[in-house]
Amino acid sequence: MKKVRVALAQINPVVGDLDGNTRKIVSYIKKAGKLKADIVVFPELAITGYPPEDLLLKPQFIKDNIKALNKAMAVTRGITAVIGFVDGDSGTLYNSAAIVSNGKLLDVYHKNQLPNYGVFDEYRYFQTGKRYPVYKLGGITFGINICEDMWFDDGPAKVQVMSGADLIININASPYHLGKASFRKKMVYSRVSKNKVAIVYINMIGGQDELIFDGGSFVVDSTGKTLVSAKQFAEELVTVDIEINSSRKKAGSKLSAVRRKKVDKINVPLGLVKGPKPSVRRKKQAVITETEEIYSALLLGTRDYVRKNGFKGVVIGLSGGVDSALVAAIAVDALGRENVHGLFMPSVYTSKESREDVDSLAERLGIKSISIPINRIFTSYLKTLDGYFNKTKTDTTEENLQARIRGNILMAFSNKFGWLVLATGNKSEMSVGYATLYGDMAGGFAVIKDVPKIMVYELCKWRNMKEGKDLIPERILWKEPTAELKPDQRDVDTLPPYPVLDPILKAYVEDDKSFDKIMKMGCDLECAQNVIRMIDRSEYKRRQAPPGIKITARAFGKDRRFPITNRYKSY
Amino acid sequence: MKKVRVALAQINPVVGDLDGNTRKIVSYIKKAGKLKADIVVFPELAITGYPPEDLLLKPQFIKDNIKALNKAMAVTRGITAVIGFVDGDSGTLYNSAAIVSNGKLLDVYHKNQLPNYGVFDEYRYFQTGKRYPVYKLGGITFGINICEDMWFDDGPAKVQVMSGADLIININASPYHLGKASFRKKMVYSRVSKNKVAIVYINMIGGQDELIFDGGSFVVDSTGKTLVSAKQFAEELVTVDIEINSSRKKAGSKLSAVRRKKVDKINVPLGLVKGPKPSVRRKKQAVITETEEIYSALLLGTRDYVRKNGFKGVVIGLSGGVDSALVAAIAVDALGRENVHGLFMPSVYTSKESREDVDSLAERLGIKSISIPINRIFTSYLKTLDGYFNKTKTDTTEENLQARIRGNILMAFSNKFGWLVLATGNKSEMSVGYATLYGDMAGGFAVIKDVPKIMVYELCKWRNMKEGKDLIPERILWKEPTAELKPDQRDVDTLPPYPVLDPILKAYVEDDKSFDKIMKMGCDLECAQNVIRMIDRSEYKRRQAPPGIKITARAFGKDRRFPITNRYKSY
Repeated sequence: MKKVRVALAQINPVVGDLDGNTRKIVSYIKKAGKLKADIVVFPELAITGYPPEDLLLKPQFIKDNIKALNKAMAVTRGITAVIGFVDGDSGTLYNSAAIVSNGKLLDVYHKNQLPNYGVFDEYRYFQTGKRYPVYKLGGITFGINICEDMWFDDGPAKVQVMSGADLIININASPYHLGKASFRKKMVYSRVSKNKVAIVYINMIGGQDELIFDGGSFVVDSTGKTLVSAKQFAEELVTVDIEINSSRKKAGSKLSAVRRKKVDKINVPLGLVKGPKPSVRRKKQAVITETEEIYSALLLGTRDYVRKNGFKGVVIGLSGGVDSALVAAIAVDALGRENVHGLFMPSVYTSKESREDVDSLAERLGIKSISIPINRIFTSYLKTLDGYFNKTKTDTTEENLQARIRGNILMAFSNKFGWLVLATGNKSEMSVGYATLYGDMAGGFAVIKDVPKIMVYELCKWRNMKEGKDLIPERILWKEPTAELKPDQRDVDTLPPYPVLDPILKAYVEDDKSFDKIMKMGCDLECAQNVIRMIDRSEYKRRQAPPGIKITARAFGKDRRFPITNRYKSY
Repeated sequence: MKKVRVALAQINPVVGDLDGNTRKIVSYIKKAGKLKADIVVFPELAITGYPPEDLLLKPQFIKDNIKALNKAMAVTRGITAVIGFVDGDSGTLYNSAAIVSNGKLLDVYHKNQLPNYGVFDEYRYFQTGKRYPVYKLGGITFGINICEDMWFDDGPAKVQVMSGADLIININASPYHLGKASFRKKMVYSRVSKNKVAIVYINMIGGQDELIFDGGSFVVDSTGKTLVSAKQFAEELVTVDIEINSSRKKAGSKLSAVRRKKVDKINVPLGLVKGPKPSVRRKKQAVITETEEIYSALLLGTRDYVRKNGFKGVVIGLSGGVDSALVAAIAVDALGRENVHGLFMPSVYTSKESREDVDSLAERLGIKSISIPINRIFTSYLKTLDGYFNKTKTDTTEENLQARIRGNILMAFSNKFGWLVLATGNKSEMSVGYATLYGDMAGGFAVIKDVPKIMVYELCKWRNMKEGKDLIPERILWKEPTAELKPDQRDVDTLPPYPVLDPILKAYVEDDKSFDKIMKMGCDLECAQNVIRMIDRSEYKRRQAPPGIKITARAFGKDRRFPITNRYKSY
């Protein structure tokens, strides 16, 4: 029985910030050293941040990333570090893990399984690795692989176990969506159970444009016992002692001759750290509900987008509705109330209730909100356009004008004071195009773009429950949704009720269900056709929407790539 | 010596329009039959249009595409047809060519080389094919492969030639950029010269969102002689008689045992068409200049985006500058002058010359242009915001307000009359962010988004030359570029002169050149740093820009995928 102490550095890098990321890696290597860790492990592409996208096509960026790795390597004294970086030259790049120790590069592992679905484009940049080495550190044999590599029964881990690995270190930049954490755990338990091997699963945390990396790193021993779990949505260094029983019988079926040939063993020229080690016991992570998990993802995504892009504050158009109320609450939790600015922009169609609800919300959140009536501006547009529109009927044109005046005012505050505009549209609206391009869709970041309307209500209720009082005024949660762009307007004049709409949207947008199946979801033929027609026709709006946080299995943006010019009718 | 008559159906499908595309394919099969063609060939994914993007993830779409293929197959009497479609089931799809004859499916070829760079995402959807069959039709042996398959010396064509192919039919959906046509020809000549085989290169035509397929299909015999070329940018059926000398010695080096095993020969159960055939002689295609080629691409892209998306007309903000003048000229050429509507929206900063130039342009193009002064609206914004901005200096906020008022007015006309707004920004502006989001960037389609400023002038001059008079008033071409958003504003106050700027933009955006090399391009250190900083910081604007036509080797949009959150500094 041998023991190895592994430190999991669940860090939050910034894409492209080679210097900053390296400084962070260096500081975590030093911290891990003080905790007497034998190995410190970092996430996938920790040096560059994930995903670096087309920065990878710049030869200078690749060179600079290798320089950065060398800087991190220099501080590995008496410790082994596993660091994600990009290996290779322009044109032949590998998503890689460096195994470094005592200032030396011992080996480089190249990712074998490249994801190229959903939000992933790894075949665009990387070649596939073909070597699955194992390393000997003291008396312990371990293998390293990267993210997707672990998702295949017959992947690199199996080869490494057949070559004697007692421990697999799997480094990740695994993006969040609801349910992903338990999906990952199930997958890792399945590898452990088939291969009787201990697994270190280290994930990145942080927000990067549309993506959230939720952390939640964990370690499972060869019997399937979870030794430690890191927090979700927070940077953390977690240290764990893994006991290795090398005499165990290796599991797993035979490997083909081809694969065996590719295995090599490399001796990591460092023993395990000698002498007494400080204790690493820690309490178990509390399990959080789905609603809390989503709220935390939105909070982290908002904070990271704002901070990583150098904004000091945000400005939000408050309508008195539930969407802008939720966005304001998230912004306050993410950035502090002093950095959140509300704008209430009433028109003649705005109700007294909306004004009261905005005032009440701002007071409860402790944010400043100013009221800027848009009537004068709206009238000036109508007068200017009167000569051209006077023979036409009032229609959505006049509604959109109001929304775009508000968009213009929000952007003016953004330009004048350097605040980022947070757009407040939800996924239900974004799906059917019930939003005005350059109007309420205007903004630098769309916080709840991937949150369906029903879930918006759940998040508000959860936040109120957590507060122990109505942080978001109760009336906002039960009054009827309305855009207030014409007299007596209600969302249900245009859309099916959200409890009917939201499941259809999921079926069509996320699950690619056929029209036959959608027809059975409580909407009649005409209603179902109408919903799908609205989704298909709104692609041009979504193409110009601000980026927002992915929290479902399929978000709009890089995750769902649809043609605008598209005559396919599934109904 | 044998002769085969091949008809190249260079068609313009619409993505998702399975019925419409199939009707078109059926009509071309019938036309080819009347011309006594032995084989009629269609482009890659002719049934679905290219690229269908995430429609491919919908199982119902795949089934519907196979139904459509069956309809086209039914009309192949006495003729063999090669038709691009999607083979497989959800999760295991192949980019495929059906070989059909006399109403029967003879074989299906699966694309082997899947492009996954630039605008291509084929690994996202398709599996790679592993079979390279040849077919016997009468006494002629031929092989089929798809697009990228042909770009590799050791690709499927070589295997097919080694298996006896006298003729290779390569079906394409090859997107246009400047220089691509000659690049393709060089590649095909190289395959012909090494393999001594005749090649039919059939390409798609048409615009699809950002992409233009430029056609230019051609046939080269085994001696390297071009037998026929189809037009660029136009739908066409081209028929050619190819003489096959099957006794020739086959060229090409030996194939490995592994590859040879994958070869099979399938007898296409049809002789060549008997009896006298109508003559197929035709005159050679005129060579066009680069400028004309780009203009034609912009024209086709604009026409197809407008028509395929069902718009009847377009509306363009005319400033009196060169960009909006070019866009208006292209729109008139693409859609007819009766479908093009100009809006001149002067402010207090608009010069008398701008008004004169807009009037002159509209008159020469024969379009209606109305003048809508924005002063009243601008003043109403300033008054409304005065209480909040009165302690601040006038800055870009007030400039952006004007641009966004114009954007709002353009969108109001779009909403009211159903006209598509054509945005008028060029690539130089788009690169450095010298444009207002939701202002002059507003629109459904950005015609010259990928055209650098210098090229904008060249296109205008070429169009005037072609007209034999100044269709675009001469003064527009020589007066100094200005946004006219504040007194005495000139582009050179903010940007280096375009002859300096444009090459730097190309070096950084298209060619990924290092900062060292960019520094040697006639801009001092500070100027070069400033340009690159502007490009990097404008990614958030580009993410919300309308789609536009790709004409360079790397366009913004799907072609260049950059993170917004990005701290990398190459300078």
